[in-house]
Amino acid sequence: MIKEKGILFVLSGPSGVGKGTVRKALFEQDTNLKYSISMTTRNKREGEQDGVDYFFRSHDEFKEMIEQNRLLEYAEYVGNYYGTPRQYVEEMIEAGHDVFLEIEVQGAMQVKQNFPEGVFVFLIPPSLEELKNRIQDRGTESEELITSRLQEARKEIEMMESYDYVVVNDDVDNAVKKVQAIVQGEHCKKDRVAKQFKALLEVEK
Amino acid sequence: MIKEKGILFVLSGPSGVGKGTVRKALFEQDTNLKYSISMTTRNKREGEQDGVDYFFRSHDEFKEMIEQNRLLEYAEYVGNYYGTPRQYVEEMIEAGHDVFLEIEVQGAMQVKQNFPEGVFVFLIPPSLEELKNRIQDRGTESEELITSRLQEARKEIEMMESYDYVVVNDDVDNAVKKVQAIVQGEHCKKDRVAKQFKALLEVEK
Repeated sequence: MIKEKGILFVLSGPSGVGKGTVRKALFEQDTNLKYSISMTTRNKREGEQDGVDYFFRSHDEFKEMIEQNRLLEYAEYVGNYYGTPRQYVEEMIEAGHDVFLEIEVQGAMQVKQNFPEGVFVFLIPPSLEELKNRIQDRGTESEELITSRLQEARKEIEMMESYDYVVVNDDVDNAVKKVQAIVQGEHCKKDRVAKQFKALLEVEK
Repeated sequence: MIKEKGILFVLSGPSGVGKGTVRKALFEQDTNLKYSISMTTRNKREGEQDGVDYFFRSHDEFKEMIEQNRLLEYAEYVGNYYGTPRQYVEEMIEAGHDVFLEIEVQGAMQVKQNFPEGVFVFLIPPSLEELKNRIQDRGTESEELITSRLQEARKEIEMMESYDYVVVNDDVDNAVKKVQAIVQGEHCKKDRVAKQFKALLEVEK
């Protein structure tokens, strides 16, 4: 049977929805997914390894990557660049691994433009009220910041139109199970399987 | 939150692939699916109940159902009609239940014409060779019949183009897990969730 290619899964969602928690819980269970390694211009910290924690690059190298369109997405944050190198993702997928990318909404939209064959999953809170509670529970944000976050979330929720799937994060275990189901279901999509099976038919003719 | 509607899932595939076994194993595990009840003109057997095992109808009643396009599919077999009434499926879906229909390929194609919003899953053997072995193992069929079954299977496999998903029945438990993943994944499809979530946004404005 012809080797099946991997799939790029992109998990995104509004700020505070729990993307990181879901991703962490997912990776504690599922070893078949490769987490996409980011590229950054920030300094390597003690214990960090190039090609494991990040790909560490100079500002000039990063800018060259941008110019050559070799990043699926990038952003500047506190004077440093962070981005997702296309090559790493493509190599993993060619080798049959699914790649998993957890990223904020603007980055996800860049990935969608540069890698439309990816599968885009939007994580949402069970309600905006719930999101508000979660942000309040952190206890570190002012009312003003919370209000602006909520406005942002409202916009981001309207952005769910750009995604393939929406997972309600009412419970981390539930959300993880749904993401796992999406991963497995995508591998059963007719277009993906048909290619392999037609090759088999050819062999037996 | 607005109540989510159910989904019609149609499991089909070539003769001998193990549709019935997969369906049985699925229903032993999953109680959230309603099995579609067929309508027939054949006589009720001892212990069978109308509306449970089948909807038992006269030939005239059945023909009227056909004329009024109230069947998602039907076929004649040994002088009797068998079919899937649209109303039962629609009522279950309205009530939020997923409906599951296991059916041969020609029936599935009729359902697709009459209910294109269904999700169509094609079950295939890991190879045609495997299908051949399975048919031979039954020990009840002549070489001639096996050859004709294989030709039919080849045609049917080419029909997988009309389906949404393809599940390889290499192992019943694997196949059941995949069908369950497809069911769960379909409920996370953006179009299905977006409707409910937009209603929430309206409420909080």
